[in-house]
Amino acid sequence: MAQDDKLVSRSEDYNKWYNTLVVKADLADYGPVRGTMIVKPYGWALWENIQQALDKEFKRTGHENAAFPMFIPMNFLEKEAKHVEGFAPELAIVTHGGGEELAEPLVVRPTSETIIGHAYANWVQSYRDLPVLINLWNSVVRWELRTKLFLRTLEFYWQEGHTAHATAEEALFETRQMLDVYTDFAVNQAAVPVIPGEKSELERFAGAVQTFTIEAMMGDRKALQSATSHYMGQNFARAFEIKYLDQSNELQYCHTTSWGLSTRFIGAIIMTHGDDLGLMMPPRLAPIQVVMVPIYRKDAEKTAVLEATHRLKDELVEAGIRVKVDDRDNLSPGYKFNDWELRGVPVRIEIGPRDVEKHSVAVARRDRPGREGKVFLSQDGLVPQIGSLLDEIHEGMLAGATTFREDNTHEVDNYDDFKEAVASGFARVWWAGSNEDEDRVKEETKATIRCFPIDQPGGTGPCFYTGQTADKIAIFARAY
Amino acid sequence: MAQDDKLVSRSEDYNKWYNTLVVKADLADYGPVRGTMIVKPYGWALWENIQQALDKEFKRTGHENAAFPMFIPMNFLEKEAKHVEGFAPELAIVTHGGGEELAEPLVVRPTSETIIGHAYANWVQSYRDLPVLINLWNSVVRWELRTKLFLRTLEFYWQEGHTAHATAEEALFETRQMLDVYTDFAVNQAAVPVIPGEKSELERFAGAVQTFTIEAMMGDRKALQSATSHYMGQNFARAFEIKYLDQSNELQYCHTTSWGLSTRFIGAIIMTHGDDLGLMMPPRLAPIQVVMVPIYRKDAEKTAVLEATHRLKDELVEAGIRVKVDDRDNLSPGYKFNDWELRGVPVRIEIGPRDVEKHSVAVARRDRPGREGKVFLSQDGLVPQIGSLLDEIHEGMLAGATTFREDNTHEVDNYDDFKEAVASGFARVWWAGSNEDEDRVKEETKATIRCFPIDQPGGTGPCFYTGQTADKIAIFARAY
Repeated sequence: MAQDDKLVSRSEDYNKWYNTLVVKADLADYGPVRGTMIVKPYGWALWENIQQALDKEFKRTGHENAAFPMFIPMNFLEKEAKHVEGFAPELAIVTHGGGEELAEPLVVRPTSETIIGHAYANWVQSYRDLPVLINLWNSVVRWELRTKLFLRTLEFYWQEGHTAHATAEEALFETRQMLDVYTDFAVNQAAVPVIPGEKSELERFAGAVQTFTIEAMMGDRKALQSATSHYMGQNFARAFEIKYLDQSNELQYCHTTSWGLSTRFIGAIIMTHGDDLGLMMPPRLAPIQVVMVPIYRKDAEKTAVLEATHRLKDELVEAGIRVKVDDRDNLSPGYKFNDWELRGVPVRIEIGPRDVEKHSVAVARRDRPGREGKVFLSQDGLVPQIGSLLDEIHEGMLAGATTFREDNTHEVDNYDDFKEAVASGFARVWWAGSNEDEDRVKEETKATIRCFPIDQPGGTGPCFYTGQTADKIAIFARAY
Repeated sequence: MAQDDKLVSRSEDYNKWYNTLVVKADLADYGPVRGTMIVKPYGWALWENIQQALDKEFKRTGHENAAFPMFIPMNFLEKEAKHVEGFAPELAIVTHGGGEELAEPLVVRPTSETIIGHAYANWVQSYRDLPVLINLWNSVVRWELRTKLFLRTLEFYWQEGHTAHATAEEALFETRQMLDVYTDFAVNQAAVPVIPGEKSELERFAGAVQTFTIEAMMGDRKALQSATSHYMGQNFARAFEIKYLDQSNELQYCHTTSWGLSTRFIGAIIMTHGDDLGLMMPPRLAPIQVVMVPIYRKDAEKTAVLEATHRLKDELVEAGIRVKVDDRDNLSPGYKFNDWELRGVPVRIEIGPRDVEKHSVAVARRDRPGREGKVFLSQDGLVPQIGSLLDEIHEGMLAGATTFREDNTHEVDNYDDFKEAVASGFARVWWAGSNEDEDRVKEETKATIRCFPIDQPGGTGPCFYTGQTADKIAIFARAY
């Protein structure tokens, strides 16, 4: 795809808008092997900021990072019956190494529960060795047939936390704690409003006892599962013999968890905030928070304009703000404005000769394109004003996305209204159906249970599908 | 290997000392697939500190991080003749994906020059697109037969920088600049003295025009290649058609470089600084710079001791020092001292009831074990003193390792003395031999040219092997 392919509007073709934007904004490119992705520097810088924000929280909650091999013996996967059933169709298999055929084929990890289980079984002997709280930043491979940059790629980047505990209570506390970490991250770092909740049995991770999720609404009103946290019970502990001697010197199986957030989340950011002009980066994660465009015609102007630009840049950088000066001399200011709008930089500062004279700058907000969002500020005291503006933009983006989701979430109590609801957003409904009912609804409407929200109203109500009395609310939607 | 396997002395069995220490100090463990490695939290924390120190320098010198797929089509490797010749014997091959046999087998990257070349050919059109300055943090796979934790593993972690430039001058400047970054890092962060130099033709990277290296001397007086920086000329640009229109609108091939440092460097740290008590972490990279051991017998003592410990801990952490309080209640102080010495923590602070009374602490240096390195300091003004002490320990470790290398580097001018020299260290010699001579020396003595140091004395001298007049000095040694 050429860089100058026009960005279509979202209403015209949402899918094409997304695919064009990811490449045009220099976030990612297609790898040579079908379904693989090159994450370009601008996209990777966003991922690094995501990593930093999450990693800080993982460490604050007592976790340590480590690294496990990407190659897993095939027989490891087979030890947990549901796990292998879930992952077998998606595996990449290494059959040859060092010029010879291998005695046992190796799997390129689709996720690391099995190799982790093997190691923890060796490391854990006594209750004193617990809990084990480890996180991995790596990439995993799942052989997907229909791929889409960031959302579904053959190889993707993520973090996978794997913990082992003495009791079910502790493991469940961990599972929910990490769900909270993800929720807080989505809302307060990415300005992506999410619904934390539990998955239905059908939508659980392969091998889990309970799966929790955060679900977000994209610009086309479809849902995106943005991170998950799993309580495994003793399933993997039994499969891999992760046992410990408790304080009464009796052998017990551990309770384990795993939890992950991937580069898929970049897709969530793009589709929650993007508009017809391009990306809109959440200020706290934006690789570039402020772009400065110096404007001049004559050489005499240039010196003064660049001097002011770099002086202000240094002040902003000093305050910890991520700034880029766009001093490319072969492009017009108008071209640059469009370019940085496409890339979603939250704040643009323009400085021309008259600004130098007046000791002012023009400040434009990405979330309010055009003249409406443009103000002139004094160069004095600019830094704290830009800091506040970034916070204000964050709050505005979060409020906007939340309103959009609320406006497109429908409470319905019968199947006809349900069908209409999931054709144009989320359906919030009482649910008392069976797994078979859930499958049928999916087949007939393409909508799935995204989650049973943690935040339940209590009481009971009539299931929209079976008419039976239900004691919990579910969110149904079509999803990525 | 059990955690309580005794650490043998280095003189008794250096190899066993190393292997035991890596596992016993909790840096790494063996993966289930032969030759693979699990990097445990303590080892990974060291790697994260290495990453942080290097990444800062990469960014300061204008590089950006990105991510490329691990799967490379087999035919990509075949495009550069020497490259495939060098790497073909070490490849891991994926032949099946998603339950089907692949039309073309995929290679798990042994290094990314080829897939980078393919992408850069698409991205670079004009001189305005140059230079491209990208770095990747990832893992690569080379099917090694003889493996050793950190030093040579089937999968290892590293960074690989890949740059494209308009001219040979710029590419050579980059190659040397990154060699300087590595040298500075080794010396000033890891306290590992290194000799920066150029590799001989025989020891060059497969496909490079020039390969530069930093070489360090290990505790057993063997050499370890600790990082490399390659100038590729136009070899990869021609193989992958990385071309640009210059300012005269003529099509030119780019000049490319690549450079890398891997988890092998952790092996360099272990074997440069470790002693018979265990690891000795260089203070600036140490995951734990200061361990605090509170000492008490009665509960009455405990409160006051822990209060003082945590108060001082908070002060140290506030100052950016990495501190751990070892308050395990089932282990004796003596056991803890040995344990943290084994793990190489640079500074140990002991606080007992008498210290609380006297408002003092006992401070022990890892680089001077026993009473000799122990002093009593006032709790007032402790933080700056600990800061200075960490610097002092760094300087001491660097000086010690440099002296050790100098003492075991021999200037010789004949083959007999050479043989003796490389049996017990580095040989520093005039060299005018051919590739065949170099091969013969290797066969007869197991010593290879580690590098032609950048720092040459000038003038000429007699080649120790051929007797001919040589105009450059080489360092020969047996190497890992």
